[in-house]
Parts: sequence; structure tokens; C-alpha cells
Amino acid sequence: MDIFFQVLTVSEAWARLETNWQPKLTAVETLELTCAHQRILAEPVVAADDVPPFSRSTVDGFAVRAADTFGASEGLPAFLTVMADIQMGQAAEMQLSLSHTARIATGGMLPPGADAVVMVEYTEEVDSSTVAVVAPVAPGENVVYRGEDIKQGALLLPAGHRLRPADIGALAAIGQTKVAVRQAPKVGIISTGDEIIPPEEVPQAGQVRDINSYSLGAAVSSAGGEPVYLGLSADKFKSVQKKVRAGLQNCDIVVLSGGSSIGTRDVAAKVLAKVGQPGILVHGVALRPGKPLLIALCEGKPVFGLPGHPVSALLTFDLFIKPALGRLMGLISSPRPFLRARLTRNLASAPGREEHVRVKLLETETGLLAEPVLGKSGLITTLTEADGTIVIPVEKEGLVAGTEVEVYLL
Amino acid sequence: MDIFFQVLTVSEAWARLETNWQPKLTAVETLELTCAHQRILAEPVVAADDVPPFSRSTVDGFAVRAADTFGASEGLPAFLTVMADIQMGQAAEMQLSLSHTARIATGGMLPPGADAVVMVEYTEEVDSSTVAVVAPVAPGENVVYRGEDIKQGALLLPAGHRLRPADIGALAAIGQTKVAVRQAPKVGIISTGDEIIPPEEVPQAGQVRDINSYSLGAAVSSAGGEPVYLGLSADKFKSVQKKVRAGLQNCDIVVLSGGSSIGTRDVAAKVLAKVGQPGILVHGVALRPGKPLLIALCEGKPVFGLPGHPVSALLTFDLFIKPALGRLMGLISSPRPFLRARLTRNLASAPGREEHVRVKLLETETGLLAEPVLGKSGLITTLTEADGTIVIPVEKEGLVAGTEVEVYLL
Repeated sequence: MDIFFQVLTVSEAWARLETNWQPKLTAVETLELTCAHQRILAEPVVAADDVPPFSRSTVDGFAVRAADTFGASEGLPAFLTVMADIQMGQAAEMQLSLSHTARIATGGMLPPGADAVVMVEYTEEVDSSTVAVVAPVAPGENVVYRGEDIKQGALLLPAGHRLRPADIGALAAIGQTKVAVRQAPKVGIISTGDEIIPPEEVPQAGQVRDINSYSLGAAVSSAGGEPVYLGLSADKFKSVQKKVRAGLQNCDIVVLSGGSSIGTRDVAAKVLAKVGQPGILVHGVALRPGKPLLIALCEGKPVFGLPGHPVSALLTFDLFIKPALGRLMGLISSPRPFLRARLTRNLASAPGREEHVRVKLLETETGLLAEPVLGKSGLITTLTEADGTIVIPVEKEGLVAGTEVEVYLL
Repeated sequence: MDIFFQVLTVSEAWARLETNWQPKLTAVETLELTCAHQRILAEPVVAADDVPPFSRSTVDGFAVRAADTFGASEGLPAFLTVMADIQMGQAAEMQLSLSHTARIATGGMLPPGADAVVMVEYTEEVDSSTVAVVAPVAPGENVVYRGEDIKQGALLLPAGHRLRPADIGALAAIGQTKVAVRQAPKVGIISTGDEIIPPEEVPQAGQVRDINSYSLGAAVSSAGGEPVYLGLSADKFKSVQKKVRAGLQNCDIVVLSGGSSIGTRDVAAKVLAKVGQPGILVHGVALRPGKPLLIALCEGKPVFGLPGHPVSALLTFDLFIKPALGRLMGLISSPRPFLRARLTRNLASAPGREEHVRVKLLETETGLLAEPVLGKSGLITTLTEADGTIVIPVEKEGLVAGTEVEVYLL
């Protein structure tokens, strides 16, 4: 039992989950290209065709044999015979013979024999069938060769890649209008606590509305998962256990968000310890807010016992559940972007724990300022008023006003 | 005509659209809270209730009159009579009389008469009805007062705010389970060019598949809009005009993405000049890639003529159409986050234009590196291989290897 009740750092806690949990990737579903944005590729995409499918001009001008233009200048132009106008969208089938050329537009097909294009700016039309080229071009100049963008048989995108607008465009380019992606992992969400009521009800004395089911549900969607709202549970072992078991049956991950009392936390810990093997992996993280986090693994599925405070619940979601969702989809993850700002006041932090501080961004003439949002830690408005968070690393005792900080947007 | 054919900077071009276009905000729709994530609030949210609805303890311990604990210490504790256990979710109705206390858990309701809570760590139970308090508390200590988080009648969130997970939680806290948000603006997307075919078809010689309809459609979704795929148009004035008119009837914005030839660009410019008043506002932007951008305004609706190159089309989308979508929803915009990286090689840039360079991020022991993705500008793989872009501002002539750059993720 001992190792389970020792408080771990954030990275130790994640490592413990990562090494103990070999996730089964979610099933594959095939989507129309227009619905696949932001989804995670289930298979590598190998190009079925060359892109472009033929050598194309990148400028408006004249398709030439480069050798015909060597030495051409304003004073001594190369005179070429215009043998055709290449039509956009049409095959260019005429063979370009010596000292001949064809008019071509950007994107037009290079005719056989041509190996370069002279920009129209470097030409003068002498008469209807003769053009004077006043500057030389090298072979390949102003041309994109067949397959130069995407080679048939080449890997275009790896499995686990999250599809961005440009990737969707590249899939269209190779004619792949259906895409195999990972299904969104299902995340069962349970709120526990005798004092919690659904938001549509009017609280009686002593009761408060459920916040975490809703904020966590939105966080699940935004991380690419599908929230499954399992509702409220009283603070009794049996009722929490029943909800968790129902969640494990239908979901890939179960998230329990406690009320805030010791009693609630105890019930959550007892349920997670007994719900399946190997049980609790992490009980407490050196993190503020979010210390009382529980992570268990039950027959291959992670169960998270999040702190009841809405702020702690969302922070621990970002640090642990979001990457867990990525793992379930085989996501190749990328670092999270931030904004730079200068801190407006000193911030103290206890060394030995990682602290996440909510800040409001203020735009000033000298740049962005990060103003810590004060207020007791359980207040949801400390989050609604904030634009982002900054991190005080575990080894630091605080940050001095004026320090440049990295702000991660909420 | 003159002013229209002068190349503007990015900010001048945006300013010209902004001052000439007074957008009509999209209609309001009412959504269930669980579907409102990432949507834009149509109305300010004013709290109907106090949160919390009663004064609550923030710790596990004993509710007290603070005055009863003044001067208490290990050596001289304050002995208080335990008159009740406050149950979670129940009203605490007993009046706390002098030298009396009640057991309370985190989140429990403060009984009338109590004004503070002593943490259980600073107490010792003497017998079943007496507790010794060994440290004093100040009035208000370990308490969140009724309405301290959200005051009834206070502005919780302004109109135009994009709902994040914490905001969804705050709406649940005040019992607002339905939310009025702005409808997604409709963006009509047209690809023009005689050489363009739908991606499900096999290109014949001279033909290429449509990329931009798909990449732009995904970009529209990701900016909160609804793509309306209007299909392909040949490079003829009449057919382009017909598509644009159809788009203006049903959409809030129309986006035309040209083929790449001068002919295509001319047709687009002619259509935009004649499709309605005031017509073309911007014709050319000091931007690379993306210079040949056209922006027109037709009877109050913007029409964008984007360059045909997929890379240019997406970049000009981000710079102009994305903020235009925000304006249609009344979005309060926020700055875009980035990553810091060091440039791996020198980059030259012509002064007088803003240049956006695609880079790949490399994680190394000394931090992130930004490696420019080389390749001819029309290649879609220069985007699929990139992680983000860096900006060389209009006044700079380039960037030196080793410079710290801000990378905006794709």
C-alpha cells in the first residue's frame, strides 16, 4: 500500500499511469473528407497518385526547351516560333521541336519536349507566331514536375496525425475523399456528493448545483473525446461503485469528480481501490490546485478521481485526462502554444509542488501583462475571469513581478 | 479606380474592410449547455442566483463564532460545546450560541451565528460533546460567503465571449442550462479554374483535383463558421458570377478561390467588380504568399477572391476571413498563442512585404528548433510537413539563423 499514498510529482504520476496502462486504441471509423477535420488518422496515408499528375508551369509565359534560350538577352533575344496555346485543363500533346514554344498559363501542362517556362515579363511578341525571349531559363525553371509535390507511394501523413485544414486539402489532392480515423474515446463523467443537485433544479439550503459534469464534459469534447454524462451519485460506497461500474462497461475512461469533503474523497478512494485490478496507481500529486487527485486502473481502463473544486478538476483534466485521450487515439502529440506576458505582481509558491496560477491578460503599449486572478481557490469566477494559466515549476519558490511568463490560454 | 489597385499592407487591407463593412450579426440560437462549448455568447450572462447560495466552509472542521476562539492556543485552548453535525446537502438551521460549535465538512452550510471555521487539524475532541480549539480564527476565515463567487445580478460573462469549459461550468452553477449563442456564419466556397476537377474524379492530362474547397472548408469550421460547398466553376465570367450570386443569397461571406493563372484572376476581379456595391475594396496585399488577394463588399457581404495556391489560400483565410467570421458573431477576440523556437537557417525576405514562412519544429536538448520547410510555394506538402508558420514583418529584410522566433501552429 505504501507507495500508493506517497505524493508524486506531475511527471511521476503520469509516468506511473503510462507504464501501467497499455491502452487499446479506439475503433476505426471512415468519414467523408469534409467531416474529418481535427480527427486523428487511424492509418498512414500513402499517396495513390502523383501530385501534380503532370509537369506544370508555375508562371504565365512560354514553355520552352531551356537550351533554346541560353545566352538570350535584351540585345540578342532568342526568337522562337509559337506553335500552340496550351489550354488550361487540356492535355498538351504537341511535341515541342527545336526553337519552338507554346503559350502557357500558371498551372498549365508542360508539353513534351519542354523543360522550362519563360515568364511573360521576359518575352516580347514579335508577330502572331514569333516571340522574342530576352533572358535565359535553366532546365526546370518555373516548372513543378509530375510528382514533385507528392510522389505516388510516398507517405503523405502518418497514423496518429491530427488532421488540419492543409492536410484535408492534401487528401483531396490525392483523391482520398474518405478517411479512416479513430473513434472519439468515450469518457464517463460522474459527480459525487450529497450536496450536489442538477443545474436545472433550485438549490435548497445546503445544496449546490453540479458544475464539474458540465465543465468536464466540455473539456472532454475539446480534447477529442465524447462525454457520457452518468449523472450524480450520493456519497455512499454502493451508489458510487454502481456508477463507476456502469461507466467502465460503456466507456474508455471514467472520471469521478468528488464533492469537496473528506468523506467524499474517502468514498472515491475506497471505490477505486476495489473496482478492479490493479486499482489505485496514484493517490495525491504535488500540484496546486489539484493535490488530492486519484488515478486508478481497472481491467485496462483508467478511472480518475478528480478533486471536487471546479478549478482543480479542470487543471487535473488538462494534465492527465487530455493526454490519456490522446493515447487512446494514438495521437502524435505536439507541444502546447502559449503567450508571453510580464507578471504584474510577486507570486509566492511552496517549493516541492507545481503551482498553476490563473491570470488575466492586459494589453498595454509595452506588451501583454499577466495579472494573477485573486480569490479563494474554489471560486469558479477565478477561472471565468482568467484568460490563461501560468506554471510555477516544482523547484521554484515563486516568481517576481516583471518576470516574463508563458501564459497557456484556457 | 486608382486606390483599388494599390497594394496595401495586411493591416491597411483589414482596416479598409473593417471601416467599410458594418456586419449584421448572425441570428441567435438557443442551445443546451452541453452543446454550447466554443460557441459565442449572443447576450451577456447576468447571474440569476448567488453562488454559492449560502455561506460554506472551505475546510473540514468546526463552525464557530470567531470571537469564541480569540486567544486560543495549545497551552490555553478554547473549549466549545459541539451542538450538532452539519450534514452535507442539508440546511444548518440551529443557531450557534455562545461557546458552541458544530462539526462541518468542506462545502457544508455555515449555521446561523457562525462566522468562521476552525480546521480539524487545530482541534482536539475532548469528549463526545466538547472540542478544544488550539488556534484562533478570524471572522470569515475558511468560509466562502453566500454570493462571494457570483453575486445575483452581476455580469458573469459578456456578449461576444467564446465559451470555454470553465464558463460552461459557471453557467451550470447559476442554473442556466440553455444558452443564447450566435449562429455559425455561412461561408460559401467556390473553386474556379478550367483545370480543376472534384477530388473523387481521376484527373485527365492537364487536370488537377480541387484542394482549396476542402482545406478552406475545414478552416471555416475551425473558425466557427459553417462551410457551404458551392462547387466548381469554369473560368468564365458568367459561370463564376452565377456561383457568386448564389453564394450571396444564402451565405454571410463568399470565398472564391482561383485557379492560379492570370486568366482566372482576371475573371475573379471582373466578377467582384460587378457583383454589387461598393465592389472591390482591396486588390493586392503586401504579403508573401498571398499577394493577389481580392476583397470586395457586395450589398453588405464580403466576397474574398483568394489566390489559387493552396498555401496562399489558407494564409489569407487566417488573416482576413477568420477575423471576418469573428465580427459576424460579435466575438471578443484574443491574441493567438505561439511557441518559441530558434531558427535553424538564415531567411531572406524582400522588405515592403510581410512574409509568412512554414517551419517544422524539432525538439532538441537545448529547446525547440524551427526548420524552414523548403519547396516551391504552390506545393501542398510544404504545409503538411510544417508544424507552424513564422512571420517576417514588413519592415525586415530577413532573419538570421539562431534568432528566437514565434511559431504559430497550423
